[in-house]
Amino acid sequence: MFGLIDHVGVATEDLDAALATYEGTFSMPVVHRETIAEQGVEAVLLDVGPCHVELLRPLGPETPVARFMTRNGGPGLHHVAYRVDDIDATLTELAGRGIELIDTQPRAGIRSSRVAFVHPRATGGVLTEIVEPAEGH
Amino acid sequence: MFGLIDHVGVATEDLDAALATYEGTFSMPVVHRETIAEQGVEAVLLDVGPCHVELLRPLGPETPVARFMTRNGGPGLHHVAYRVDDIDATLTELAGRGIELIDTQPRAGIRSSRVAFVHPRATGGVLTEIVEPAEGH
Repeated sequence: MFGLIDHVGVATEDLDAALATYEGTFSMPVVHRETIAEQGVEAVLLDVGPCHVELLRPLGPETPVARFMTRNGGPGLHHVAYRVDDIDATLTELAGRGIELIDTQPRAGIRSSRVAFVHPRATGGVLTEIVEPAEGH
Repeated sequence: MFGLIDHVGVATEDLDAALATYEGTFSMPVVHRETIAEQGVEAVLLDVGPCHVELLRPLGPETPVARFMTRNGGPGLHHVAYRVDDIDATLTELAGRGIELIDTQPRAGIRSSRVAFVHPRATGGVLTEIVEPAEGH
């Protein structure tokens, strides 16, 4: 069903400090930076072989990532994303298996990907994203 | 420095329920099951392409994973692990870059791997593991 772990999402209050660790210390190349207003974040994507780390800075206190950091007591691991070839087929299959989806239809994700979230209630407390990358990524 | 995301660790109170999701609904094959007394967990490893999900059930209330679930308010995403070819060289390099390590020397991980943890203080709140898989994995 899933090809691999596409990325982990890391919530941060300070993108520069996070980049000092992930780009500086861990030598992960930055491949993309984007403000995704719909999700209330500024996001930076770094390569880790075929996978990525996605750093997420909330655009305001009422955004999902800011609320996550309040609940979490600070920055940390926010979600995991699995890569698929055909997100429409995957969502149909997951819905058919009775899993609770946040998004029953794909929406726009980072770097022109199509994404959908599965509810953490359905996955043992893990916010889970499904990603169909844009062609060429 | 890191080859790819080796796995995400998911803390759970109920391995059977977690397996119903990850093996059942998400069709991830179970490839290994092991009690790691030193880490206070029973762990199940599932394949996601070249990556894995590691389900972790604490063996008692005073274990790190049980304490994580108390802090977290329940089960959830516990850590991310990056794969390396030579964990000794990686730890030397990370220490040379001044990053705070929990383990300055590798210790035994799941499925005969060698692992070490980086302190969440050094990584924006993300418990981060470095994994050198055993030969053949």
